[in-house]
Amino acid sequence: MNASAQPVRLRGVFSPVITPRADDARQSAAMLVRHCRWLLDQDVGLAVFGTNSEANSLAASERMDLLDALIAAGLPAGRMMPGTGCCALADSVALTRHAVAHGVGGVLMLPPFFYKGVSDDGLFASYAEIIEQVADARLRIYLYHIPQVSQVPISLALIERLLQAYPGVIAGIKDSSGDWANTSAMLERFQPQGFDVFAGSETFLLATMRGGGAGCITATGNVNPGAIAHLYHTWQQQDADAQQAALDALRATFMQFPMIPALKAAVAHFAGDTRYGAVRPPLMRLSGQQNNDLLRLLRAREFAMPGL
Amino acid sequence: MNASAQPVRLRGVFSPVITPRADDARQSAAMLVRHCRWLLDQDVGLAVFGTNSEANSLAASERMDLLDALIAAGLPAGRMMPGTGCCALADSVALTRHAVAHGVGGVLMLPPFFYKGVSDDGLFASYAEIIEQVADARLRIYLYHIPQVSQVPISLALIERLLQAYPGVIAGIKDSSGDWANTSAMLERFQPQGFDVFAGSETFLLATMRGGGAGCITATGNVNPGAIAHLYHTWQQQDADAQQAALDALRATFMQFPMIPALKAAVAHFAGDTRYGAVRPPLMRLSGQQNNDLLRLLRAREFAMPGL
Repeated sequence: MNASAQPVRLRGVFSPVITPRADDARQSAAMLVRHCRWLLDQDVGLAVFGTNSEANSLAASERMDLLDALIAAGLPAGRMMPGTGCCALADSVALTRHAVAHGVGGVLMLPPFFYKGVSDDGLFASYAEIIEQVADARLRIYLYHIPQVSQVPISLALIERLLQAYPGVIAGIKDSSGDWANTSAMLERFQPQGFDVFAGSETFLLATMRGGGAGCITATGNVNPGAIAHLYHTWQQQDADAQQAALDALRATFMQFPMIPALKAAVAHFAGDTRYGAVRPPLMRLSGQQNNDLLRLLRAREFAMPGL
Repeated sequence: MNASAQPVRLRGVFSPVITPRADDARQSAAMLVRHCRWLLDQDVGLAVFGTNSEANSLAASERMDLLDALIAAGLPAGRMMPGTGCCALADSVALTRHAVAHGVGGVLMLPPFFYKGVSDDGLFASYAEIIEQVADARLRIYLYHIPQVSQVPISLALIERLLQAYPGVIAGIKDSSGDWANTSAMLERFQPQGFDVFAGSETFLLATMRGGGAGCITATGNVNPGAIAHLYHTWQQQDADAQQAALDALRATFMQFPMIPALKAAVAHFAGDTRYGAVRPPLMRLSGQQNNDLLRLLRAREFAMPGL
């Protein structure tokens, strides 16, 4: 494959954008477009269809329809890193092909996650088959390491092997393990080869930037995009540690609740549109009490989502 | 909903039928039909699209095409219990609707398995939405409890709640936990209400029958159907314990290898068709050495698959 046709490398802060669930698909898409615009306005890129987007609760056709809607609304494909990794190879291929055809900056790809204890050989074969079947020089894959959810880790040995076999295509990783030793090892071993390491949340944003990484992809980017993007742009300034501490404090507030329902509840409140609060089973929306508690804590922090 | 239109209750031995992976979909379907016929000839029912069928490695459309092919080949829908539980609600609804429209005896339904640590409320909501959306009086759901793979257990409390809300629709369970205390608890609490408990392998077939259960659904049904079905039919005879011991010994041979590749290797060998050996990533087929070791062990047991 020829890497020369590939787009500009993705860097910065991305958010796994919450996926609204309105009464019909058209409304949901319009609400997603609105939230994506607000994120882009604050220089946060669109890692649509991530874990916090309830992506795996959407059928492949639902994801493709939503991506079509974002593109049709004029949002820039080059700022998108849609999740395309499914259990079924055919789904992963279809989603990846569709996203690449739209010119996305890259795709964020979970390993197949139903079977547990699978070998690196099997995971390599999975990524390899997808790459060979998509067969598009524009393809850039960001691996998605989130072992506490997927239960299928992406080892350093697997990354090394994929990088050797598919240089240019294997573009980086989102490390959501929460294990800084792992992120650090990837920064040391692979970032110098142009393999872009994104922290899995803003918790390690400053540390990742100091380690030469590319940014972060974070759930709380949905609610706190401006401040997180600001740290990304100013991490070399003197107040960077203070900025990081402030980001951590807000994140800790959300972490007191189930994350996805809490993000959706906050967006619903500040957007003045209760429809944003709906989630898909097996998740449950916040109870009335949880919702009140969250808003009380956010008020105490004088938190707002300006412009939403 | 009206339960009176429902088909005869499923009982006996079922196999999560291996799903061949030939060069094209038509060949794969023909090979699946052949294997299903052989199983039915030995009185083993078709729990197609189970864990050992690599069902989650198939796109929803691939599963529907294969089920269409089985029906078109004249195989009896009433002897089928296809797996229809996916991460995405829309996929589970589509697969379940399609299977029920074909008149299957029941569907075997995994809970959504991407998110971990989800609540019983969320799992109840998931099953409830599927039932409400499918909205077909013929629907019979067998819950699928396989926590070591799905990582999302189906608790006794959840079963109780589902049975109360959807009597007749919630028809039973496959308990693949390997935890006899759990199977036993379900036999005591729910089987008397007509909730049919299937052991998740033949390991507990005799114990399940003695406890009043409905049978078993077992991977090794793919290779040893006749003997397992024989124990099901004769479990009250004096040689039942000896039969169980013989089944256990053969299963132990397969358990020395990765189960799905080993089942496929055995079928490939005894069917004289190497194409049956192919698996889908992230699984890997047996190595040459493993294949030789398996066949040597099977020869030592004078194992055969007559009529395949």
